[in-house]
Amino acid sequence: MTAPRSDDHEGHIQSDDLREMRNVRGGRPGDRYVKVVEPFATEFRRRAPGHLVASEAVLEPTGGVGRLADLLRRALIGRRIASEKELGERIGPFKGLAIFASDNISSSAYATEEIMRVVVVAGAGALAATLPLTMAIVVVLLIVVTSYQQTIRAYPSGGGSYLVASDNLGIGPGLTAAAALLTDYVLTVAVSVAAGVAALTSIFPFLFEQRVLVGVAFIALLWIGNLRGLRESANLFAIPTYIYLVAIFGLLGYGLFLAATGSLPTYHAPPGWADAAPLEGLGIVLILRAFAAGSVALTGTEAVSNGVQAFRAPEARNAGIVLILMGSLFATIFLGISFLASQLGVVPDPSERQTVISQITGTLVGAGTPFHYLIQLSTAFLLILAANTAFAGFPRLASILGKDRFLPRQFQYRGDRLAYSVGIMVLAVLAAVLLIGFKGSVTALIPLYTVGVFIAFTLSQTGMVRHWWTRRNEVRGWRWRAVLNGAGAVATGVVAIIVGIVKFAFGAWMVLLLIPLLIGLMWAIGKHYRSVERALAVDWTSPALPRRIAPRVVVPVSRLDRATLNALAFAASIATDVTAIHVSDEPDDVARMKADWERWGGPVNLVILESPYRALIAPMLAYLDATDRADPAQPTTVVLPEFVPNHIWEYPLHNQTALRLKLRLFFRRNTVVVDVPYHLS
Amino acid sequence: MTAPRSDDHEGHIQSDDLREMRNVRGGRPGDRYVKVVEPFATEFRRRAPGHLVASEAVLEPTGGVGRLADLLRRALIGRRIASEKELGERIGPFKGLAIFASDNISSSAYATEEIMRVVVVAGAGALAATLPLTMAIVVVLLIVVTSYQQTIRAYPSGGGSYLVASDNLGIGPGLTAAAALLTDYVLTVAVSVAAGVAALTSIFPFLFEQRVLVGVAFIALLWIGNLRGLRESANLFAIPTYIYLVAIFGLLGYGLFLAATGSLPTYHAPPGWADAAPLEGLGIVLILRAFAAGSVALTGTEAVSNGVQAFRAPEARNAGIVLILMGSLFATIFLGISFLASQLGVVPDPSERQTVISQITGTLVGAGTPFHYLIQLSTAFLLILAANTAFAGFPRLASILGKDRFLPRQFQYRGDRLAYSVGIMVLAVLAAVLLIGFKGSVTALIPLYTVGVFIAFTLSQTGMVRHWWTRRNEVRGWRWRAVLNGAGAVATGVVAIIVGIVKFAFGAWMVLLLIPLLIGLMWAIGKHYRSVERALAVDWTSPALPRRIAPRVVVPVSRLDRATLNALAFAASIATDVTAIHVSDEPDDVARMKADWERWGGPVNLVILESPYRALIAPMLAYLDATDRADPAQPTTVVLPEFVPNHIWEYPLHNQTALRLKLRLFFRRNTVVVDVPYHLS
Repeated sequence: MTAPRSDDHEGHIQSDDLREMRNVRGGRPGDRYVKVVEPFATEFRRRAPGHLVASEAVLEPTGGVGRLADLLRRALIGRRIASEKELGERIGPFKGLAIFASDNISSSAYATEEIMRVVVVAGAGALAATLPLTMAIVVVLLIVVTSYQQTIRAYPSGGGSYLVASDNLGIGPGLTAAAALLTDYVLTVAVSVAAGVAALTSIFPFLFEQRVLVGVAFIALLWIGNLRGLRESANLFAIPTYIYLVAIFGLLGYGLFLAATGSLPTYHAPPGWADAAPLEGLGIVLILRAFAAGSVALTGTEAVSNGVQAFRAPEARNAGIVLILMGSLFATIFLGISFLASQLGVVPDPSERQTVISQITGTLVGAGTPFHYLIQLSTAFLLILAANTAFAGFPRLASILGKDRFLPRQFQYRGDRLAYSVGIMVLAVLAAVLLIGFKGSVTALIPLYTVGVFIAFTLSQTGMVRHWWTRRNEVRGWRWRAVLNGAGAVATGVVAIIVGIVKFAFGAWMVLLLIPLLIGLMWAIGKHYRSVERALAVDWTSPALPRRIAPRVVVPVSRLDRATLNALAFAASIATDVTAIHVSDEPDDVARMKADWERWGGPVNLVILESPYRALIAPMLAYLDATDRADPAQPTTVVLPEFVPNHIWEYPLHNQTALRLKLRLFFRRNTVVVDVPYHLS
Repeated sequence: MTAPRSDDHEGHIQSDDLREMRNVRGGRPGDRYVKVVEPFATEFRRRAPGHLVASEAVLEPTGGVGRLADLLRRALIGRRIASEKELGERIGPFKGLAIFASDNISSSAYATEEIMRVVVVAGAGALAATLPLTMAIVVVLLIVVTSYQQTIRAYPSGGGSYLVASDNLGIGPGLTAAAALLTDYVLTVAVSVAAGVAALTSIFPFLFEQRVLVGVAFIALLWIGNLRGLRESANLFAIPTYIYLVAIFGLLGYGLFLAATGSLPTYHAPPGWADAAPLEGLGIVLILRAFAAGSVALTGTEAVSNGVQAFRAPEARNAGIVLILMGSLFATIFLGISFLASQLGVVPDPSERQTVISQITGTLVGAGTPFHYLIQLSTAFLLILAANTAFAGFPRLASILGKDRFLPRQFQYRGDRLAYSVGIMVLAVLAAVLLIGFKGSVTALIPLYTVGVFIAFTLSQTGMVRHWWTRRNEVRGWRWRAVLNGAGAVATGVVAIIVGIVKFAFGAWMVLLLIPLLIGLMWAIGKHYRSVERALAVDWTSPALPRRIAPRVVVPVSRLDRATLNALAFAASIATDVTAIHVSDEPDDVARMKADWERWGGPVNLVILESPYRALIAPMLAYLDATDRADPAQPTTVVLPEFVPNHIWEYPLHNQTALRLKLRLFFRRNTVVVDVPYHLS
């Protein structure tokens, strides 16, 4: 096979070679591709000369352990899906509501309660402020929903805050929105799971002690569920969403009927809950704090516009329907629960063991009745599904950021089922850490939440105003569109400022610290990738390969054995300047090595480096540096003899020094490392 | 530099080359060594042609972090010591007693107490059995000490049980002794540290809650202290040992004086300690259990004979002196404490908060007096020093086993201060795990202890009997020597059986399970190393290098950039058969790659592997396998373009796929992997 070689091969390849190779690449009949392709029948299809398509067979595991792992993987996350099958994975409004609106709707499970937890500081009497505050928040919600309808129309391929902000306002605001959203997604998972567990512990009090563990288990389930892919996740959860809607509207209808007929039962707060003297009056600060706490109700509103591309065509229309449905359903539930809580005079449980909804249900239909269980279980399921929304959003946003080179490329990689595996893993781990850190308490987590959401809202809506302005000559009615989005931007901006200020000391500072750090990190990553891109860009004018000076080849040898000879043979086959180096930490060893080398008498010269301080790597590197100084232009090639044992468990018994040497050499300039493994036959 | 090459280089190297290289190896004046050696002045001394000695300069760290780490290392463990300075590190009897006898002598801190904890089950009255049991154990001790005197004379270069057993009885008994000793060393550290902490908590009760943490901190200190090396460890601890001896003999003398004059103070056991009704009578089983518990007193007796080579010349004489001193001192203290405990009627504290010695001291001189503190503090220090004995023994034994290829070679490696770093680390970690697992309780750990010791004793003494028998024609008085060792073997064998049976259910089963597992592991490691040794052995008759067929060279490329061109250039410089392979997981990427390649027009042909399931590694490997099938004899060389960023933190942003590919290729037959790093300039 080996063609005659001449000295010229060390530098530019000759024109004869070039012509021959080009012909080959052209794919002439009878060229060497034909020979190469033949045996591939099972693993590859040939699409064009030099262009093969791998079949699923190349992924078949070999060996018992591999097959077992594959079986387990299939059982957990299902069969692999080919990239080209992706289009079939899209969803309609019915499932879309389950997967994208659940985040927002599920906020009704705790929004009322979080308002009450703030106003109750001013005494049980101040709880009357809950309903007016709810109404104020619903007004903001309606503005935001109207505003986002425009975003969906303007960005039918998916208009997340990052995209809209960077598209219209530039990369700074874009990264700010992205950082705010990433933080928010993590908090969505932590808060929703914590609230879901709280809904469960309201009916199963024995779970209360284990609430962190139960929460982490739910996150693990979401992880696996999402590796299965988008449509399946929706199937997994669609039914509980609709059960929740039916159950909660049943409860509200029944409650309103009782209220209208003046036959509401009497609620008795357990002793101690409402007896405490008011800590302060119901001033403006407390009202703003309660408003900020309740504005958690708006989280999840942006989910639909982020995920337009997940909908079936017509994407924008389907997404718009879901957004309107979501807004109306949520507003109704939120108002209804706040109304019933006020009418009954419910007091929030200071120990977080009973949710407000659980208390309302217990009062209206009786604690421990089947309907009470139904409300609590479907609430819990809905909240888990809300966390699932973040599992759809975070990985998608991270993959976009990865594609734009603001996050590591790995976030772009899609796993066996087309899910962004890395993003899903990162989200699950961060949310679990947060849940553990805050001991699973919703009220402790809430102050961190919402700041990020409203920053992203504001930037996105401001971006939309700019969007209409730049298109003022193309789009009819751009004025009222800009006004609508402007109203959204102002409303969410004001809320963002309120939330940032009143929640600052309670935990929002962490998020307000984290967001700039994340922006800085993404900016640094982007800068790095771009500078590398520039540095690696090819000079297209010259097809010649860079000229290489023949290297100085060094073979570290620990002793003279077949693995060593194998490496020496490889070294001799690629160069004439080959030196074997033996680092020795004891005199006996020096003598033995010298004797062995003399006895062998082979055609390679040996340098022995005695190391009185017993280090093995440092003398080798010092030697290479010293020879470099003698001739700095000549590159170094280090050929490493490595012994590969038959079983993986035997590996730690060998090659430890080679491994450390390899790591050090990797960072050494002008040095090529060649691994010559020697397998036992 | 590059000499003209011919086709023949691919196989046997020609005789011309051979002659030239031999001349070079011969070190003729003017040959290339001279040139190579010149610039080494600071880093290397030249000992002979091709034989350099590294100076400490090669270990100088570069860069700020490296220098800081080096500074910290020096502060913790001191300056490096060159191998040739080793002889100066040996010790005399005075320090030898501190370092080797402390393990045994320190047993006096808990041996009496452990006997009492067993007999007290039969009621406070049964505590009278403590003194007779102590006498029985002292008799066994005297037999063992006498027996070991012989071992030291017969094995002046160090006669550990492993050495003696494998030397005389074969590899099976040798490995059994080794496994028993390794287990025992770990337990010595755990038990001694736990007992040391108990001595401290007797006077500082607030430490009791943190006793596991305090114990782990002591183990960490021992770790660092032992990395400093042998003599320094002795300096660090010698003074407390002698303080302990003075203090404890003071206490015993004072106590015996009071007893002789009939003026012993009255001891009052705190309420509840002695009131409990006897659980069973003082039958033979309980007596044997108490004997087994007390036989912990013999642990550490073998330390001296293991470490003969650590003594100054005459090694055997110095070691013998230490052994006799140790036996006499220990027997006296042990008997004295048991005598005083019986005379006073001390009852052991069921909660382990007060040691028996602390109670005796408190009763005789008053609790909380300076002398009480002195006794407790010096006891604690002595016990930590006892743990230090294991830190001398375990790494040395592990290094011998590493040299004999029954443990990984890494155990042979000696760190900056000539200490066996790996063995020290393994011992510290295992002991800490044990201490945490048993919550720092001496009484919980004791049943695991002693089984291993007595197995090793028995094997070693039996080996000595065999030793004298095989030398019966050379050694005068071999009969009485064999009888002395035989008595030792019988005595320790009987104790081993008693301990194994009566402590089995209390935890000895763990050790009796672990020892065979360890034996199996060491045997498997030894077998593996020997089979590798055979397989790698060189055929000395032929100095020719193995003939290599020119490889098929494959360059995986993710895109066309300078790093790729660099790798392609290297590939082209070592072979003519070069193919670039691009695995693609999306159609856009395929088109872009093809276009780039056409645009470049360079002299290497490209194969595109489309991967519809998005895997990047598997299609590459399947392709290599398929080409292998076409020509199984031709080896494969994979040339990996790798981009090396300027900063280490940038590394995770690159090369992840290359890293995974490298790992998989390492285990592939007939495949050489070449790393061609591309550094940004």
